[in-house]
Amino acid sequence: MQFKIRAANKEDCKEISRMIMELAVYEKMPDQVKISHEELERDGFCQNPFFECLVAEVPEHHKSREGFTVVGYALYFYTYSTWRGRSQYLEDLYVMPEFRGNGIGKSLLSKVAECVCLGGQPERLCAAAVVCVELEHTHS
Amino acid sequence: MQFKIRAANKEDCKEISRMIMELAVYEKMPDQVKISHEELERDGFCQNPFFECLVAEVPEHHKSREGFTVVGYALYFYTYSTWRGRSQYLEDLYVMPEFRGNGIGKSLLSKVAECVCLGGQPERLCAAAVVCVELEHTHS
Repeated sequence: MQFKIRAANKEDCKEISRMIMELAVYEKMPDQVKISHEELERDGFCQNPFFECLVAEVPEHHKSREGFTVVGYALYFYTYSTWRGRSQYLEDLYVMPEFRGNGIGKSLLSKVAECVCLGGQPERLCAAAVVCVELEHTHS
Repeated sequence: MQFKIRAANKEDCKEISRMIMELAVYEKMPDQVKISHEELERDGFCQNPFFECLVAEVPEHHKSREGFTVVGYALYFYTYSTWRGRSQYLEDLYVMPEFRGNGIGKSLLSKVAECVCLGGQPERLCAAAVVCVELEHTHS
């Protein structure tokens, strides 16, 4: 399946917000999501953004059953260890269920790693939720 | 005991680096500290700093046995939750043993909380190492 991984822009925040909720539903905690796409727009696209985000996009003819073409995302930010220095933290990595098994999760993860290197950061990348990639590996 | 809490500046990095090592020695893991004061200077005092830091300073006549006047620090950075939004993470909070019991740890923590509010952030503040404050409370 054709897809591309690209840096998210402000206009993607509604889609990212939708997928954040999908992930929370999967984790059986949808009531824990307290932020909307407006907060994502404000916090991710200001002068000193609080996070960076990549999205996976499929062509129009591969859109989801509901008509979505943005089908996955990886959201990460920078942290700091007083022992090891600069680090990245992968907060979420998500691919919509019907698009799993196509290498999208792996590509998102590779691209995050690449962004880490481009930023002149060390190779430390921590993650909380890799469940979707694991699922994808299981199905591919 | 007189002391002041202030934002760290680039020139404090040698002192912060020394106290990072003291904390690591206390935790019995001094060999885990891989960064020097040069990295702290580069990462904390660039255009988009990776962390923020407060230091506690005592007057010259209260200096430590070894002659130090910077006797504590709180180092924190910003993180992002896709459920809750902006957050702060307190990486280290440290007060030199001979200065504990004077409210320095508590003042550092209050000032961190104040900086959080001034920055227009929500009240979420996470911490890994609060052991020094606990010790101070025990002794005061």
